[in-house]
Amino acid sequence: MVQATAQLEQDFLDYVKKMTAYNEALSLMFWDLRTGAPKKGIEQRSEVIGMLSSEVFRMSTSEEMAAYIAKLSSTEQLSEVTAKILEESKKDYDRNKKIPAGEYKEYVILQSKAESVWEEAKAKSDFSMFLPFLNKLVETNKRFINYWGYEGNKYNTLLDMYEPGVTVEILDKVFGELREKIVPLVKRISDSANKPATEFLYKKFPKDKQKGFSEEILRQMGYNFDAGRLDETVHPFAIGLNPGDVRVTTKYDETDFRTAVFGTIHEGGHALYEQNISTELVGTSLCTGTSMGIHESQSLFYENFVGRNESFWTKNYGLLKSYAEGQFDNVDLGDFYRAINESKPSLIRIEADELTYPLHVIIRYEIEKGLFNDEINVEDLPQVWNDKYEEYLGVRPENDAQGVLQDVHWSGGSFGYFPSYALGYMYAAQFKNALLKDIPNYDQLLEQGNLLPVKEWLTEKVHKHGKMKKPLEILTDVTGEGLNANYLINYLYEKYGRVYELN
Amino acid sequence: MVQATAQLEQDFLDYVKKMTAYNEALSLMFWDLRTGAPKKGIEQRSEVIGMLSSEVFRMSTSEEMAAYIAKLSSTEQLSEVTAKILEESKKDYDRNKKIPAGEYKEYVILQSKAESVWEEAKAKSDFSMFLPFLNKLVETNKRFINYWGYEGNKYNTLLDMYEPGVTVEILDKVFGELREKIVPLVKRISDSANKPATEFLYKKFPKDKQKGFSEEILRQMGYNFDAGRLDETVHPFAIGLNPGDVRVTTKYDETDFRTAVFGTIHEGGHALYEQNISTELVGTSLCTGTSMGIHESQSLFYENFVGRNESFWTKNYGLLKSYAEGQFDNVDLGDFYRAINESKPSLIRIEADELTYPLHVIIRYEIEKGLFNDEINVEDLPQVWNDKYEEYLGVRPENDAQGVLQDVHWSGGSFGYFPSYALGYMYAAQFKNALLKDIPNYDQLLEQGNLLPVKEWLTEKVHKHGKMKKPLEILTDVTGEGLNANYLINYLYEKYGRVYELN
Repeated sequence: MVQATAQLEQDFLDYVKKMTAYNEALSLMFWDLRTGAPKKGIEQRSEVIGMLSSEVFRMSTSEEMAAYIAKLSSTEQLSEVTAKILEESKKDYDRNKKIPAGEYKEYVILQSKAESVWEEAKAKSDFSMFLPFLNKLVETNKRFINYWGYEGNKYNTLLDMYEPGVTVEILDKVFGELREKIVPLVKRISDSANKPATEFLYKKFPKDKQKGFSEEILRQMGYNFDAGRLDETVHPFAIGLNPGDVRVTTKYDETDFRTAVFGTIHEGGHALYEQNISTELVGTSLCTGTSMGIHESQSLFYENFVGRNESFWTKNYGLLKSYAEGQFDNVDLGDFYRAINESKPSLIRIEADELTYPLHVIIRYEIEKGLFNDEINVEDLPQVWNDKYEEYLGVRPENDAQGVLQDVHWSGGSFGYFPSYALGYMYAAQFKNALLKDIPNYDQLLEQGNLLPVKEWLTEKVHKHGKMKKPLEILTDVTGEGLNANYLINYLYEKYGRVYELN
Repeated sequence: MVQATAQLEQDFLDYVKKMTAYNEALSLMFWDLRTGAPKKGIEQRSEVIGMLSSEVFRMSTSEEMAAYIAKLSSTEQLSEVTAKILEESKKDYDRNKKIPAGEYKEYVILQSKAESVWEEAKAKSDFSMFLPFLNKLVETNKRFINYWGYEGNKYNTLLDMYEPGVTVEILDKVFGELREKIVPLVKRISDSANKPATEFLYKKFPKDKQKGFSEEILRQMGYNFDAGRLDETVHPFAIGLNPGDVRVTTKYDETDFRTAVFGTIHEGGHALYEQNISTELVGTSLCTGTSMGIHESQSLFYENFVGRNESFWTKNYGLLKSYAEGQFDNVDLGDFYRAINESKPSLIRIEADELTYPLHVIIRYEIEKGLFNDEINVEDLPQVWNDKYEEYLGVRPENDAQGVLQDVHWSGGSFGYFPSYALGYMYAAQFKNALLKDIPNYDQLLEQGNLLPVKEWLTEKVHKHGKMKKPLEILTDVTGEGLNANYLINYLYEKYGRVYELN
């Protein structure tokens, strides 16, 4: 009996390993499409991706999978890793099985149509084109929520897909606190006469030089080029095929080096997470980041707490100058530091600075919550959107392209995803606070360019666990408390008070 | 009944399409491994490739496949394309099913061990290390031939895997003629006092400049960069993922530009084949070159009849000079042309010139034929090898690394593959002769850099058919005759007589 279970466990692990293998092939095809795949091959490639994805989906909902779940759930002899894989598999299985096959198929077609309509609507800045599709996407997700069931708030079911354990109750509290504190700080900065000079940021900085600098910084962060590579793309991302192959992509703007430099540091943070997952999880479904939010905590930790830190530039400003073509010759470190930390309310989330960024996310959270609780109608979105931007950021979009149509997420049916961005930022601030207790000389290490103790700490606390721990479990284990907005608020007040000499 | 057959045919095509899709994913993983995949990811990647390959193999030998073959073989309503796919599927099925599963598995393990032992044996130049593995590989293939059956000669069964329809009877004749004519020509050239000067070939030519020139030549050939890309690798190859995505790889030697230039033209020839297969074959198992030999005919056509042609350099020598750093400043076109067509007996096949190359292949053919007809013992191979090199080429290897251990093929169990290289060359010469009837101003077109009519002719005659026609069918349709060594012999006599001013 014990032996039979051991065999069944092994068969289950082999089955999951095959799905993981197929996912690696899919990841490579995705990476390839975005880093130089010939355009005439794209149509056929999409078919290939479709077929392999369908196979993974089929395996996740097959009778074989059902049998593994049924038989293994009742045994207590599973290893800790297998038990966790089983839990994840069951969650996927239940979620996918509860949607009638016909409805799911229709939804996939809707997503694909909606995405191309959104693209056109955005180009024409015409929300009314996208409206019927967005309506259907929201309606379908509402129906799915009924199939899936919910606790407390319907929107919780969507949140759970990206950040298991995080609920409306939690977010209302922390996002409320963030908003309440950040809005007046943004206002004070907007009104401040003491603004940094920034013209020197926009001088020509050749692409290959930016690449050279970016590579040096990735190395300094501890990114392992034997287990990764850096390529160019249009919409940057990092992707982990397995811990030995985690690729970073970036974009070069020759008249604004910040795009590549901070973009690479951000994606490098994601990549460090995937490169340092424990090798015992390789070939399992747990060999990836545990949630969108925890992933974002790693990228934002590096982008903001390392890359926008003054000590980091004490070490690296000279290096940057050596790659640049004289654009910083008459700029001292203090002025450079202030310039790269300029904060200014803006309309586009992905271009926002670290202070105003959370407000962009909170607006989307409030809108999504309203939509799924029937408090906001889809047709009113442009109005609601613009009003909130005016209220929180003091700027009002002049058209839908700059407003409600700017993000791709909703066109793909991704509702509940946005909060991860601000959650990640809060996690990062909480991690930073905990790290300072173990590594009080953090700034000194940055000044020395010795980032390895930081990476090792994050690996020990976060990276190595992969999906073995849930996001809030990691947070509590590392910081001794749950979500707490104060660490981020304090960081922003302290830093921006200093950069803008507010007091 | 008709409708039931139509449905069955469609199901079969969908089944094959899925296998084709998996093969595209495999091809991308292969390409990626050889063009910059991070080394720490290779171990896991091998597992992924193993799993996906096994799945394709499983599908090709499944009960489902057996049912399609059984049911569809008896119907006469199939489209021409489906009938051909069915024929190919049946051939694969039969071949794979005849080997007992246990023996096949053992063979796969043997191949993988043998390859790493070969690598070490070659490094140490020690045939005795490799001997027991080569013995087993040969023995296993002999056993497999018994399972598969054979007609006329046991070796025919192996030839058929790479060049269906080509037999020992045919090869004995044409390879015999080639050998008989080439050996004395090589001897005359070796004895000639009138050798070209070549020192200027070995000057420094920077990699990025070589790349620029190679790209221009690929464009001139009609290679479509919207359906391909050029990357660097160690062992160059071209690979077709689908006709819209056919990638070329090359290698740069900064002190010998010929490696990249002729290598790129050669791989470009392969790539033109794959880019120009009829779109109606996309997603089927027929969407690839019909045989190794016909594939090689396309690469050798471009490498030798285009790339080593004087008219081609009349057009492109100036261009080459514009990329080079002065190395050709004092070299006139005639001297350049003679230098790149230097012929000299050598020990290593992949470094051989176009005149001596066929002899390298013929030696391997004679040895393989002897092995599988029990006329040569594996342990005698170094002796046999060296004797043949001395007899045909007038050079004798000083050690096994330069001799019998130089090629990877046998270590992977690829017996019957080598003849394709020389067959391709003969096909190419026959195609060239047929092409001249339709395009008598061939040399003039090359002088103008107008290679498109050549590409269009080859597409019409060869490329577009994919695997719809067998190699000898293509040859007969295009040239009106079967294999005939005289075209290649005449070409070599005419050209080398001229280059070495023999008469």
